[in-house]
Amino acid sequence: MRKRRISQFAPLLIALVGLPARGKSQLAHRLARHLNWNGESTKVFDCSEYRRRHMALYGSHDIFRADNQQGSAIRRKSAREAVQDAVLWLKDGNSVAIFDGTNITREQRRELNEYCISDMGFRILFIECVCEDQELLERNIIEILHYSADYKAMTEEEAVDDLRKKLEHYMRQYEPIDANLENNLNFVRVENMGETVTAHKVSGQKESGILGYLSGMRALPQTLYFTRHGESEYNVLGRIGGDAVLSPRGESYAHALAEYMNGLAVREPLTVWTSELHRTKQTAAEIIAPKRAVRALNELDAGICEGLTYEEMQERFPQEFAWRDQDKLRYRYPWGESYIDIMTRLRPVLSALEDEHNVVVVGHQAVLRCMLGYFLDAKLDELPYMNVPLHTIVKLTSYGYKYNIEMIKLPIDCVDTHRKQPKNCSINRSTADALVTVPSHYDTLPSNLWQNSEAQP
Amino acid sequence: MRKRRISQFAPLLIALVGLPARGKSQLAHRLARHLNWNGESTKVFDCSEYRRRHMALYGSHDIFRADNQQGSAIRRKSAREAVQDAVLWLKDGNSVAIFDGTNITREQRRELNEYCISDMGFRILFIECVCEDQELLERNIIEILHYSADYKAMTEEEAVDDLRKKLEHYMRQYEPIDANLENNLNFVRVENMGETVTAHKVSGQKESGILGYLSGMRALPQTLYFTRHGESEYNVLGRIGGDAVLSPRGESYAHALAEYMNGLAVREPLTVWTSELHRTKQTAAEIIAPKRAVRALNELDAGICEGLTYEEMQERFPQEFAWRDQDKLRYRYPWGESYIDIMTRLRPVLSALEDEHNVVVVGHQAVLRCMLGYFLDAKLDELPYMNVPLHTIVKLTSYGYKYNIEMIKLPIDCVDTHRKQPKNCSINRSTADALVTVPSHYDTLPSNLWQNSEAQP
Repeated sequence: MRKRRISQFAPLLIALVGLPARGKSQLAHRLARHLNWNGESTKVFDCSEYRRRHMALYGSHDIFRADNQQGSAIRRKSAREAVQDAVLWLKDGNSVAIFDGTNITREQRRELNEYCISDMGFRILFIECVCEDQELLERNIIEILHYSADYKAMTEEEAVDDLRKKLEHYMRQYEPIDANLENNLNFVRVENMGETVTAHKVSGQKESGILGYLSGMRALPQTLYFTRHGESEYNVLGRIGGDAVLSPRGESYAHALAEYMNGLAVREPLTVWTSELHRTKQTAAEIIAPKRAVRALNELDAGICEGLTYEEMQERFPQEFAWRDQDKLRYRYPWGESYIDIMTRLRPVLSALEDEHNVVVVGHQAVLRCMLGYFLDAKLDELPYMNVPLHTIVKLTSYGYKYNIEMIKLPIDCVDTHRKQPKNCSINRSTADALVTVPSHYDTLPSNLWQNSEAQP
Repeated sequence: MRKRRISQFAPLLIALVGLPARGKSQLAHRLARHLNWNGESTKVFDCSEYRRRHMALYGSHDIFRADNQQGSAIRRKSAREAVQDAVLWLKDGNSVAIFDGTNITREQRRELNEYCISDMGFRILFIECVCEDQELLERNIIEILHYSADYKAMTEEEAVDDLRKKLEHYMRQYEPIDANLENNLNFVRVENMGETVTAHKVSGQKESGILGYLSGMRALPQTLYFTRHGESEYNVLGRIGGDAVLSPRGESYAHALAEYMNGLAVREPLTVWTSELHRTKQTAAEIIAPKRAVRALNELDAGICEGLTYEEMQERFPQEFAWRDQDKLRYRYPWGESYIDIMTRLRPVLSALEDEHNVVVVGHQAVLRCMLGYFLDAKLDELPYMNVPLHTIVKLTSYGYKYNIEMIKLPIDCVDTHRKQPKNCSINRSTADALVTVPSHYDTLPSNLWQNSEAQP
């Protein structure tokens, strides 16, 4: 059979392959996050969720036996339903569907490949997850026991025994992808969560990006720290943008931050990434760790509005101000940037960060909204209104493909810079309506902005 | 030895590994083109060029024998010099150096790895090229015989014999990279120019991107066709941007283009990529091939100047007009785009295109300048002034990592839209100075713009 050539613009079905506990779901969800951020609308279709819909209660490993006919029927039906939903998703104009199943037999893969290419005209890429690293495998198993819906009703001992038996059933049926026997499959084999990645006949723009992403994946748990710079003189004055230095209270935060970071008992040493602007470098100055000033971490460029207060924006550019309130995510300042723009320039930094551990990012409000939004799977429209207050360390700790967030507020007073979306975003609104949510600020720098003062403007 | 962790922001040395004729140089130069376009300043250091400097005349394969002491000394010296220049390049603040040598022994690789990481603090990635595909290998050999400086003075028969013996010398010394014996190397193995790509311990943002690029590489020669849309009503009026339809002469070009394309005797079928604008779709309409409208191919967005003539731009926005002339590459129209912006949005299209054959791109002036500039290795500052006339098919045919360009002008009259950079780009220049290079155009649509007319406004 001459292989049909599918257009590079066709939607892509990704089918995972491999035994349970090989990291398939983690890979699926992390990849989906990455692709969605890069503008490819992607969704994971988890076969086990469909299976659970057909069984009020999990029961036991027994349904995974090859000779359990009722179990096989349920599993086949679930797989079919997951694929059907994936196909609907792609037909709806979306870009990538990830079918998170085991697909462990050659016959299953042949059928799926054929259906996708010949019947649907879609692209298809198989990703096989293999794990020979015992330590990694055990960590994956522990995560399944903790988080899988199947094991909620069992004791730990019962669950361990059940999962072990389930694995045995699967191992009996597993036929790893064989490049010679299955020469018409496009596939990637991922060993030990990215230690070795092999691509066979993989081409196409989406697929190349995916391959690159897979090789950079970090298998180990990671902790990342984020903080805005300390309060700057512009923050005090309610001015946006610019390259101001820290206020006295901002300097106090820099001391407190360094004290906190230098006091952490971390096994892997810290690294600090700042923007190229004074206020982040000044904030990071006393942290004892190698530092790197990264241009892509610079604050959103407010163009013609750099250095203005919101009141001045309303006075000089009321139309721009209203437009921004109408669609803060997409609004681009004349000669400046939009949130969408900074999302684009942050892509390489986010990819790099996914491979790091114990990095402290000292950044800015808009930039950190985007970065935290990425790790926390925020909806795009929510990004511009996320609350990332000054003088607060945000600690992210990975578990599986998700992140725990911890907000550590250091006790140094500061202004609030968070302006909520006002109710009235019309171009003809009154000045009062435009300014109703502007946080309070000083009009000139006070002569003594002492630390821990209760005084607020 | 605990492996030293090198920052993701450190410069990267790429060292190629493999026998002659395995496609190393082709890979090196294509990768360099891709990286440079993506903002990573990259240069190839070709070991054989250094070797040739030490030998007035090539002589013969004999210098590659393991037991030829003088030959070995020259080869070692050349390799050392290439690496030293690569190191200087990276110390100068550049991002990637590609060391195009054979590096076929474990000892060579161990030394290079050690030197790079421990002495220099650089990142290093080995890329091994393997070729089992006899057809591919023979094509590579033929290219070497044609293009290598070593064989200029030989008859073809002598050259074939010499290259065969040279290969034999190398094969005796070659130790392929072994993941177990050389466990501390980060490496990618590329088989048959990208059919199978294996990455071992590859991480880091630059490396991930490189891996993705390598898997999408097309080994086969390719032909690509580019053309601007036929003359549009806006072209006739000297207006920029907009979404106008074709002029009668533009329609004639659409017919002629279709006739030309439909008459080509191509073995692999054609595909047509247009922008989303009327004038490109209209131009491609009669070509018999699957068509795809690609948003990233839309013309540069001229923002507040969309639909204006140059005369009107000078009248309404003289300062903007002067700024654009001062730095046309980086100048971004208010609410619009710069050449740099469209280069960014073209990246995925260019990656996709590198994997295609017989694609006809029907595009726009600025977009095609960037695309052709990519394949022809143009300097960035030259891009905005490249001459890409209307009613002309640009045919690119690959040979090795380079492209031959052929301009096929179809005999349908049209206006000239190419405005050269004027001498005076100062903000205070006179209107006459600003408009001196504006090409002539009509002020209203003439009632009969007949085909092949000699009449020009």
